Amino acid sequence: MKIAILGYGVVGSGAYEVLASHGYPVKRVLDIRPHDELGDVLTANYDDILKDKEIGVVAEAIGGLEPAHTFVVKALKAGKHVVSSNKHLICTYYEELHRLAIENGVTLRFTSAVGGGIPWLYNLKRSVRCDEVTKIMGIMNGTTNFILDAMITDSREFDDVLKEAQALGYAEANPSADVDGLDTARKTAISSSIAFNTIINEEDVSIFSMRTIQKCDIEYIVGRLGKTVRYLGFGINNGDSASVFVEPAILSYKAPESNVCKNFNMITLFGNSVGRLSFFGQGAGKYPTGNALAQDVIDIVSGSCELSFSPCELKVDNGSHKRQYYIRTKAHLEGEFIESAEKIGANNHIITKPMSVKQIHTLSKAILVSDSSSFFAGFEE
Amino acid sequence: MKIAILGYGVVGSGAYEVLASHGYPVKRVLDIRPHDELGDVLTANYDDILKDKEIGVVAEAIGGLEPAHTFVVKALKAGKHVVSSNKHLICTYYEELHRLAIENGVTLRFTSAVGGGIPWLYNLKRSVRCDEVTKIMGIMNGTTNFILDAMITDSREFDDVLKEAQALGYAEANPSADVDGLDTARKTAISSSIAFNTIINEEDVSIFSMRTIQKCDIEYIVGRLGKTVRYLGFGINNGDSASVFVEPAILSYKAPESNVCKNFNMITLFGNSVGRLSFFGQGAGKYPTGNALAQDVIDIVSGSCELSFSPCELKVDNGSHKRQYYIRTKAHLEGEFIESAEKIGANNHIITKPMSVKQIHTLSKAILVSDSSSFFAGFEE
Repeated sequence: MKIAILGYGVVGSGAYEVLASHGYPVKRVLDIRPHDELGDVLTANYDDILKDKEIGVVAEAIGGLEPAHTFVVKALKAGKHVVSSNKHLICTYYEELHRLAIENGVTLRFTSAVGGGIPWLYNLKRSVRCDEVTKIMGIMNGTTNFILDAMITDSREFDDVLKEAQALGYAEANPSADVDGLDTARKTAISSSIAFNTIINEEDVSIFSMRTIQKCDIEYIVGRLGKTVRYLGFGINNGDSASVFVEPAILSYKAPESNVCKNFNMITLFGNSVGRLSFFGQGAGKYPTGNALAQDVIDIVSGSCELSFSPCELKVDNGSHKRQYYIRTKAHLEGEFIESAEKIGANNHIITKPMSVKQIHTLSKAILVSDSSSFFAGFEE
Repeated sequence: MKIAILGYGVVGSGAYEVLASHGYPVKRVLDIRPHDELGDVLTANYDDILKDKEIGVVAEAIGGLEPAHTFVVKALKAGKHVVSSNKHLICTYYEELHRLAIENGVTLRFTSAVGGGIPWLYNLKRSVRCDEVTKIMGIMNGTTNFILDAMITDSREFDDVLKEAQALGYAEANPSADVDGLDTARKTAISSSIAFNTIINEEDVSIFSMRTIQKCDIEYIVGRLGKTVRYLGFGINNGDSASVFVEPAILSYKAPESNVCKNFNMITLFGNSVGRLSFFGQGAGKYPTGNALAQDVIDIVSGSCELSFSPCELKVDNGSHKRQYYIRTKAHLEGEFIESAEKIGANNHIITKPMSVKQIHTLSKAILVSDSSSFFAGFEE
């Protein structure tokens, strides 16, 4: 089965590179712009894909509603599997596209539409096969998380950080879809629809914009309340109804979401049997999102993720990886490897220079002979 | 295709309940102890499973090497798919079991052998199809994380917390496999074997026990170094060799692992295209691990996770879910809904009593009329 990719923008080109570099047969890429590196693979005529019997799966990375909707509907009606990274399309035509896929006996996948490189929707769909998901929540928008993280870490004002995010390409010239919550609302609606096996539209989602947050709010939340704040989408199954909303959320510093920094995402499901299950990673970007789009394609062309086994020879050599170590021991140590040493009571607290896993493990055996209570820990950057 | 479960202990009974309650056909459970609730499903004779042509998948949850190894080998040779939650078995017979599965054209799955309810190995295997995983690392043992978290949070000594963990059933009477690192080493070897498409044995893993950690180490790491500590397994691909080790690791407070509390696990891969991808959840327990075992079984009996679509009616009603809110506004607010209010400069910082999403969103519209810069955030517990 061969693959076509619709759109050669950020995500489409990322998916193309991921698939092609791993030997998956991308026969066509649809784009109206010239891309010499694609040679004959490039076409501006959708019929070259639609009428090609070899092409069994169409990966849509155009974005927006049209022409993506028309192309996807034609592909499904032509009996081609469809993969999409387009949250606007999936959220708007959720029911129509699923019904068309069923009617035509093909698969519809859109893992990359929510959470970028994080296989969130795929794992959520896998979970609901044998679990009752009662709640989903998550940091689903990297732009707003980057802004909040910078405001909290460097005590800066919203507008100041937004300008930086725009300069870095993390935020659009018009940031409304991110900071006013529509992007998170669509992702929350799609996630809630799968989690609760229902159909939730973006209009159903109550949204608080995070645009009005100020330094004084951070000071109050952090300084007075001893908590922190992130921008979250929520879907909660109340049994007879669902609550679906997007809000700045005040969190304990011990909450996993509190350590989601920069433009990372974290999305969580709560299942009756699995408990809390969270997925953390890059919520956007050419290669992460391209990777997620490619993964859905590969599930279809190679029938999910079944067994292959052709192991390579890879010698374990713990002499090659170096890091600094902390040593606490009553033993008296001397040598080049010591960066700093401090004696507190009977104990020497030592920080080593970078040394290999093999070196420290060999050294530790000698140290443990003179003080079997000695403790060793490596510094993980 | 029907299912057999070997062993009706904690994990086996959890998997049975998850599968049976969702309509998956468990025809036989093998256990030598009586379990009246299982009726005719229970057998103490493995031949009842091995010779049953209807049974296509065998889920092994006995643990240990024998008789698990004999049973699994017989199942594979009889052309039955095998799912196992047994890290000792998988780590010890990694190559033999994979080769037998290939030779007999069946699937071998063992997601639940690492990370309990976390679909880590499944997603890792899925990732390596189209990405180069350069490093894996993780908190893979809930007992040691529970101990470290309690030592840090409540500044207690190791022995004291260990006793509590044993009383709570988080730690064995003989805790060596957990605190001396063998459990994490086996999980790290299995994860590294998949990540780097090679075969790494438990003997290849360099281990530091975490048994010798003392309150004075925590005081030094937290107080002097301003960092925290977790017990991690590492697999690093150096290109021509791999570093594989288990150590207490000193981490920044901003590291995602630093907020892994109690007995939770977090396991991470670093891929060239996907970047950092982390999985967080319950690393052990009857229902989480039973759920993960069941998920592998369902992938086999229903051919992975393909499209089904029969959505239910579930009305969105944001009037039903209540929580407290933070409001910052110049508007003067009065009413029953206010729990506390504080004026700082021109701003009122208000904490509300619990109110529904619908109530606060309605109220916010009125407040934004008098002060469009007002900010709203919900308290997430």
